[in-house]
Amino acid sequence: MKVGILGASGYTGLELLRILLRHPHFEVAAVTSEQQAGRPLGEAFPSLRGHTDLRLEALAPAALAGRVELAFTALPHAASSPAVHALREADVPVVDLSADFRLRDLATYETWYGRHAAPDHLAEAVYGLPELHREALRRTRLAAAPGCYPTSALLPLAPLLRAGLVEQSGIHIDSKSGVSGAGRKLEAGYLFAELDGNCHAYKAGFAHRHAPEIEQEATRAAGSPVRVSFVPHLLPTVRGIATSVYLRPKPGATAAQARAALESAYAAERFVRVLPEGELPSLQSVRGSNFCDVAFVEDARNDTWILLSTLDNLCKGASGQAVQCANLMCGFPEESGLLGAGWMP
Amino acid sequence: MKVGILGASGYTGLELLRILLRHPHFEVAAVTSEQQAGRPLGEAFPSLRGHTDLRLEALAPAALAGRVELAFTALPHAASSPAVHALREADVPVVDLSADFRLRDLATYETWYGRHAAPDHLAEAVYGLPELHREALRRTRLAAAPGCYPTSALLPLAPLLRAGLVEQSGIHIDSKSGVSGAGRKLEAGYLFAELDGNCHAYKAGFAHRHAPEIEQEATRAAGSPVRVSFVPHLLPTVRGIATSVYLRPKPGATAAQARAALESAYAAERFVRVLPEGELPSLQSVRGSNFCDVAFVEDARNDTWILLSTLDNLCKGASGQAVQCANLMCGFPEESGLLGAGWMP
Amino acid sequence: MKVGILGASGYTGLELLRILLRHPHFEVAAVTSEQQAGRPLGEAFPSLRGHTDLRLEALAPAALAGRVELAFTALPHAASSPAVHALREADVPVVDLSADFRLRDLATYETWYGRHAAPDHLAEAVYGLPELHREALRRTRLAAAPGCYPTSALLPLAPLLRAGLVEQSGIHIDSKSGVSGAGRKLEAGYLFAELDGNCHAYKAGFAHRHAPEIEQEATRAAGSPVRVSFVPHLLPTVRGIATSVYLRPKPGATAAQARAALESAYAAERFVRVLPEGELPSLQSVRGSNFCDVAFVEDARNDTWILLSTLDNLCKGASGQAVQCANLMCGFPEESGLLGAGWMP
Amino acid sequence: MKVGILGASGYTGLELLRILLRHPHFEVAAVTSEQQAGRPLGEAFPSLRGHTDLRLEALAPAALAGRVELAFTALPHAASSPAVHALREADVPVVDLSADFRLRDLATYETWYGRHAAPDHLAEAVYGLPELHREALRRTRLAAAPGCYPTSALLPLAPLLRAGLVEQSGIHIDSKSGVSGAGRKLEAGYLFAELDGNCHAYKAGFAHRHAPEIEQEATRAAGSPVRVSFVPHLLPTVRGIATSVYLRPKPGATAAQARAALESAYAAERFVRVLPEGELPSLQSVRGSNFCDVAFVEDARNDTWILLSTLDNLCKGASGQAVQCANLMCGFPEESGLLGAGWMP
Repeated sequence: MKVGILGASGYTGLELLRILLRHPHFEVAAVTSEQQAGRPLGEAFPSLRGHTDLRLEALAPAALAGRVELAFTALPHAASSPAVHALREADVPVVDLSADFRLRDLATYETWYGRHAAPDHLAEAVYGLPELHREALRRTRLAAAPGCYPTSALLPLAPLLRAGLVEQSGIHIDSKSGVSGAGRKLEAGYLFAELDGNCHAYKAGFAHRHAPEIEQEATRAAGSPVRVSFVPHLLPTVRGIATSVYLRPKPGATAAQARAALESAYAAERFVRVLPEGELPSLQSVRGSNFCDVAFVEDARNDTWILLSTLDNLCKGASGQAVQCANLMCGFPEESGLLGAGWMP
Repeated sequence: MKVGILGASGYTGLELLRILLRHPHFEVAAVTSEQQAGRPLGEAFPSLRGHTDLRLEALAPAALAGRVELAFTALPHAASSPAVHALREADVPVVDLSADFRLRDLATYETWYGRHAAPDHLAEAVYGLPELHREALRRTRLAAAPGCYPTSALLPLAPLLRAGLVEQSGIHIDSKSGVSGAGRKLEAGYLFAELDGNCHAYKAGFAHRHAPEIEQEATRAAGSPVRVSFVPHLLPTVRGIATSVYLRPKPGATAAQARAALESAYAAERFVRVLPEGELPSLQSVRGSNFCDVAFVEDARNDTWILLSTLDNLCKGASGQAVQCANLMCGFPEESGLLGAGWMP
Repeated sequence: MKVGILGASGYTGLELLRILLRHPHFEVAAVTSEQQAGRPLGEAFPSLRGHTDLRLEALAPAALAGRVELAFTALPHAASSPAVHALREADVPVVDLSADFRLRDLATYETWYGRHAAPDHLAEAVYGLPELHREALRRTRLAAAPGCYPTSALLPLAPLLRAGLVEQSGIHIDSKSGVSGAGRKLEAGYLFAELDGNCHAYKAGFAHRHAPEIEQEATRAAGSPVRVSFVPHLLPTVRGIATSVYLRPKPGATAAQARAALESAYAAERFVRVLPEGELPSLQSVRGSNFCDVAFVEDARNDTWILLSTLDNLCKGASGQAVQCANLMCGFPEESGLLGAGWMP
Repeated sequence: MKVGILGASGYTGLELLRILLRHPHFEVAAVTSEQQAGRPLGEAFPSLRGHTDLRLEALAPAALAGRVELAFTALPHAASSPAVHALREADVPVVDLSADFRLRDLATYETWYGRHAAPDHLAEAVYGLPELHREALRRTRLAAAPGCYPTSALLPLAPLLRAGLVEQSGIHIDSKSGVSGAGRKLEAGYLFAELDGNCHAYKAGFAHRHAPEIEQEATRAAGSPVRVSFVPHLLPTVRGIATSVYLRPKPGATAAQARAALESAYAAERFVRVLPEGELPSLQSVRGSNFCDVAFVEDARNDTWILLSTLDNLCKGASGQAVQCANLMCGFPEESGLLGAGWMP
């Protein structure tokens, strides 16, 4: 099946290419990049030299309709929705990696991101976290691949909320992300000399755009409003997110119930590994893979439960998950193209 | 004033040397190392070549009594207390960088560290956090320099506890530390190939030895028991700790009160910088310096306050703070030898 | 075809597993590790959890004969040759990743590595650089996968020597390697805190064991003795080797001839990319892949030619190349299992 | 003595501040920055918060004349020479960290850098390598602080050239530099995600602007023309340069003579450490210090001598050396403010 990648020259675009160039069912037939239109992929991105004869082309979503049977849009938010609109008008199924179709409430979107260019498509969009919305993803033509931080928080959190085991306010989420999550932005803060040996929080409290996304999906899992505080950090590394979620158990809820909820939620899942008691997740175990590792820790003295998770922000946190969605939408085995082991060391 | 460093070949020992070789009032007169006794310092540690003619010698605490007027013990816990005992018997003032005299309760010590070799000296030991115990430090002959994590948690936390503004249970402390905190341990987990690009939690909940130390001092600041959960992480960097503390305000307490408590606590302090609203601390701003940066963030929606701090684990988190204690014990200006700016970039 | 990996718990063993677990023609049927015998692979190496049910077993080469049709030996030198001997006695084809069968001259081997335990097999061993010895590899039952440094030096150098374009003495090779090349050695010099931000030469001149290996194969390519000086460095990164080779052209030899020699040597090669004039290789373009990038630079003013190459030391410099050899030995397409694009970013 | 720093917001400017804020004889009285004029230093650069009340001001070199007794210009090349001109017209002594006054030949300058804005001052400029030009520096009012790469190459090389021990052509210089050498340039190639785990050569052969600078000073040391080829690399670290210089000894010259030449050249030097035989330099031993470590290695088999050096590109390679020059120009002890030990770990 021929697919296109719109915005192929960012880091999520490159990761899509890494996965799709070896995918058993998808063939990349078109790649776009505004800045590098006309250049062969292998020249623009030397790691791809010798892997493909594709050439980057200018963005023209409507024109792709006849050439691809599914499109991945890896464009910045706001730039993405018009492209998605054009593709959907031409009836091309889309997996959108931007934030434009993740928030179901238009007002919330516009509070955090500004005016929405294609609000009519919000209704058909399905939040692309297969472990939470698999059946809807099988049926949709527009998947909104989740943010990297929300994936890392929701996979551990959702089963406990769904089971009604934890208080729904006072949840504290502390995340640490590799720098590739910021994309290829030319800002001083992303220079090597500013980040190597550094680590710092940013947009702490409820100030990062992924915070309302986490609350939306946590609320859906719980069935009633959930409140989280969220502190993201930049790590001096390229790939990976490590997240800690601090929770208060509801009166009477036990750690055994919590473990059981996690284990039963993910027993049949290919890409979520609930670690045995005593083991904690690391970035190195998931780097380069589509896996999310999850651990549960109890501090009974302090009436606190802690969930720890790790994933690769570019893979399970972005492009791998987008391919997982596309596999579902197209009826292919969900894990197609995604079973490579992590990169260790 | 002549000083000695016992255990000079670990990372805190090297950092003591870096500071003390340029100190205006202390002169390093003896350095010990079990493994490298007999070698000139500049040969054992090439960064010190040309800076000193000192030679490492075998540990013989009692014999140092006539040669030094103050001793820094940078030995592992359990190995340190017999040396401290010998030095104190000879009436040499000591700044101990190990954990042996940090916990005031012998039973707690023995629960976490095993049998104590010199419990008789616990009573004279003062917890070496000058911002909390300055007057006692001026008068003591035995300072127990705090752990790196406790320093990073207590400096932001103590003023709010002292002011009675926050709930004393359900406190969540999420810390991220550079690898030098583990010292020069030869374990696979500290190899470059296992840590570069990696980040992981360890001893999560209430399992790290610094957790009871944090509770001890937090309880002293509050005047009644405090409960914390603590999740330390290893960062892929050498120096620095970034800590997030999640708190629930007491009913009626306001963010303005919290800020005022922090600002008044540290207005006259040389080494704690309370950042203006909107700025957050980073490792890069404190690396190589004796400063601790602190920020306060409110998430009123979720009834949550967040304290963020950064410091250099080897300097303000260990050797710099030890020198600060020694300056106080000897009546020198507290900041002597400690005013160098951080290393940026 | 069932294969075994002897010494699966080192970094080259892990990289073999990463490649072979997704290989279209090989199935890993046995993995050995002295230290971790009995443990499931996914427990010993969390990145492999969920990818395999294999369990590590103790080394017993002869017993593997009935269970595997080919063996990869990723054991330390000297430990490898007895295992290879046992496997070859049982007529199992072997790709050996150690140094034990790379040097054709027994005396040279024993000068650099000490006594050889299985010299009788030296004669049947083929140096496992497919671009130089493809036909011999198709016919052999024992391939000696080259060292990582020699691969990075020989791929650029061999075509110019073969073409007689450069002086055969006074060759200077300056290499920079990621730390994984040292394996999982527990030595202070490989700790994160000693290597992050560091870079240093070691065994400079003609003191590294890979130096005679380079001279052996350079001499074979030239047809008469070649002399090289070799300075390896450790880089503060995990994977990758960047090599500079400084050459003096023979009188009358032209840069155009040199480029033509490189381009014709590698025009049909899948894994060596000769870069267009003006482009230089980087580690990032080859990391995680089986590719070697090569560039040629002329400094006519100083009668100097410079070859620059990069490769991933664990992949094309070790395990990827070993699989390439195994593909040839078994008659599979040479690139089977090895076509994944590099990891960028 | 009051000094000013023009261009204080780049990395060499920050390093000047780190050194000068603790200097016993200089007091920083003015700091300029085009982009951040008006901001307090401690706000623009959080590592300096609490260390100074200085405020960045717009560049107005002539107006500084009455306020400072010496100026450091840390501006980009071409931007620097007009400022130097204005300062020199007002008779302010200047240490210029740009390239504008390093090359003595105007035509060479203009070939590599474009039109020179103040060629009249070339004649009074002294190349600011104290170990080579100490007496001239004591007498000059304009020092041109050397490039970082040239410092790392010339310190090991000059004594052997001066002693006539090595051939003056066919010299090969392979350098590896931390990223801070590029300054704070907002280019994709300097992003963390492009450099972490990466290493690559650039401007190889005789294409980097530091190459003619090396040849100029090497030629002065030798007394007749010297030819070098030069391959710089970027390392995935912030600070430090490691350089290898490959040389052919002249007929009859011995390694003992070479060692003696190095040792006698630097026996009385405070900042150049010739390492004992068998030891090799590392970045970690010099990071954060004004030291340059040098080692000599012979490969007699291949008629090759190798010099290895390391230094901190921002300190001995730029700002530390500039302060060393200023100390000489002002008659202060040459090592004033520069004796801090390196940062280890």
